[in-house]
Amino acid sequence: MKAARFYGKEDLRIEEVPEPSPGPGQVKLRNAYAGICGSDLHFFFYPESLPFALDKPHPLTGATLPQILGHEFSGTVVEVGEGVTDVKVGDRGAVYPLAVSCGTCAACRKGLFFSCPLMGSLGSNVTGGGLAEYVTLDASKLHVLPDSVDLRTGALVEPMAVAWHAVSRGGVKPGGTALVAGAGPIGIGSWFALKARGVDKVLVSEPSADRRAIMSGLGAQVVDPVNEDLAAAVASLTDGDGVDIAVDAAGAGPALASALAGLAPGGRLVVPALHEHPAQLQPTQLMMTETEIVGAVGYRPAEFDEVIAAMVDGFYDTTGWVQELPFEGIIDAIHSLRSGVGGKILLQVG
Amino acid sequence: MKAARFYGKEDLRIEEVPEPSPGPGQVKLRNAYAGICGSDLHFFFYPESLPFALDKPHPLTGATLPQILGHEFSGTVVEVGEGVTDVKVGDRGAVYPLAVSCGTCAACRKGLFFSCPLMGSLGSNVTGGGLAEYVTLDASKLHVLPDSVDLRTGALVEPMAVAWHAVSRGGVKPGGTALVAGAGPIGIGSWFALKARGVDKVLVSEPSADRRAIMSGLGAQVVDPVNEDLAAAVASLTDGDGVDIAVDAAGAGPALASALAGLAPGGRLVVPALHEHPAQLQPTQLMMTETEIVGAVGYRPAEFDEVIAAMVDGFYDTTGWVQELPFEGIIDAIHSLRSGVGGKILLQVG
Ligand SMILES: [Zn+2]
Ligand SMILES: [Zn+2]
Ligand SMILES: [Zn+2]
Ligand SMILES: [Zn+2]
Repeated sequence: MKAARFYGKEDLRIEEVPEPSPGPGQVKLRNAYAGICGSDLHFFFYPESLPFALDKPHPLTGATLPQILGHEFSGTVVEVGEGVTDVKVGDRGAVYPLAVSCGTCAACRKGLFFSCPLMGSLGSNVTGGGLAEYVTLDASKLHVLPDSVDLRTGALVEPMAVAWHAVSRGGVKPGGTALVAGAGPIGIGSWFALKARGVDKVLVSEPSADRRAIMSGLGAQVVDPVNEDLAAAVASLTDGDGVDIAVDAAGAGPALASALAGLAPGGRLVVPALHEHPAQLQPTQLMMTETEIVGAVGYRPAEFDEVIAAMVDGFYDTTGWVQELPFEGIIDAIHSLRSGVGGKILLQVG
Repeated sequence: MKAARFYGKEDLRIEEVPEPSPGPGQVKLRNAYAGICGSDLHFFFYPESLPFALDKPHPLTGATLPQILGHEFSGTVVEVGEGVTDVKVGDRGAVYPLAVSCGTCAACRKGLFFSCPLMGSLGSNVTGGGLAEYVTLDASKLHVLPDSVDLRTGALVEPMAVAWHAVSRGGVKPGGTALVAGAGPIGIGSWFALKARGVDKVLVSEPSADRRAIMSGLGAQVVDPVNEDLAAAVASLTDGDGVDIAVDAAGAGPALASALAGLAPGGRLVVPALHEHPAQLQPTQLMMTETEIVGAVGYRPAEFDEVIAAMVDGFYDTTGWVQELPFEGIIDAIHSLRSGVGGKILLQVG
């Protein structure tokens, strides 16, 4: 089968590898679509700064270089292993990629598996991933898609679940108000998640005109934080109160600062974005208004199901922000992602 | 009666003023002890940066200059107004100073009265305060002290409630672990509050040898963050996990950063301290560990009662950190507080 294998810094090759075979409790999936995101860029451009030296076998999975990438993907079951009863050949599903964690560290003991230093996901420290024609995985990791959710949308479940989880961490309440800073995939997903959960007054702040156009096309109220008055737009949306939830989906200091400034007393800023640089804030502002900043990473299995249910309910319009490329376009996709292309790129791997 | 009245920047005078008389629902208190804190310093040295121009009447209370200061105090009821039935002459109490808030702003609608821009407390934007021989207040604002809590300790209820509330905001659970950064009164109070609530593993980080000596004298485990390895001390206390709660009671960037670094995954840093300068942090650290930073300001009436109950239970040892000065020592007290004296200064006002 064809697979995109990572050999080291800026060295990813599509090559022929043997097809995997499902063990007991596993299914074999013919992958359909696989997205790429900032995590993949991190692998590709900065492998030296990953938590593990990739040239040694992962302590829990034994995975080493070359490593098949791809953790955002969907596919169709083509074979089931011994003992699998709840998934059958022909089922289509979105893959919950988290595969292993140590089980004993402070993070694991609290159920925060994405904060485990030994965490491994399909496409990252595990043998196999979405950027291949086939993959095997535990049947329990396949979230079967209803008929009304196609495989292309199914490949978006993982990135949309990142944003859904962030919104969960924001303490979302129907009827509340929100600010989303940044309209990359996490920002787009946060907007969908807020809407799906009954938060109708949502403002999206984004400096890029292209990304603002995407959000406007989806029906969002947008503001350019550089050339417009973001604080005034927040005040206007909320009758001067400030927002209940802000999502920092930008990963930049100014976005974090303005999101914080836009909070109502008691409001909460969620940070699901990676920041390259430290950020500056005034702790007295947090103190005087009892506002909060909380981190968000990964998702929970139930959140995959919640995203899929919201997809069934029609909340995930993919107009204008999802593009498909043939599998062979993977290197181009990585470079265009790095150069700041808006939206989500899906590779047609199957 | 004698009262310490604030006339403007660095101008506080003890002078004779008429005794107040209790209105319906009010009591007249003969004040016993009144503490001073950073808020009083702010009035004294930087009145120009207060939310209100003090030379105009406060919109809700009409209070203006000169203004009697003092919001941390205790006293004995000497007269009750019409309709007061649940408090009687001779009752001793700690005063809950919050007197007014607008009732309609975003903060008030969430019960966050200390974040209301029109908030007024006895000793701050209200006519009357603790730095006087007598004061009148609504009977409901007097938290009556049991026999086992003396008036000197009663004057500490307010500052201890600030710390108690901060610990509440930390999501304290019995058996958890904690780091308190800074051993001024809020740090001392946080240590007591943690202990009283069943958090036995508490580390106090404090650069001043004098303040560390105070904490050691109270039985706390202390560390010097400048000359010792704070991270190693946290790891040793928590078997490498990090702490569940950190309290930034220092109001300084390095303390905030090290408190954040000391958190376990999912841990929470509470900021009850005023920071003079902005602070730097790495949002990715918050994200990767799902940690949280939350502000804390003020307290709730129930927290006054919780502090008093913990005082009855013997959790508030005042050895080494509480000093009394005669009322006439107020200006000296303000200057020694500003110069960094440890612990709490109480003025004998009654
Ligand atoms: Zn991703
Ligand atoms: Zn672990
Ligand atoms: Zn105070
Ligand atoms: Zn208000």
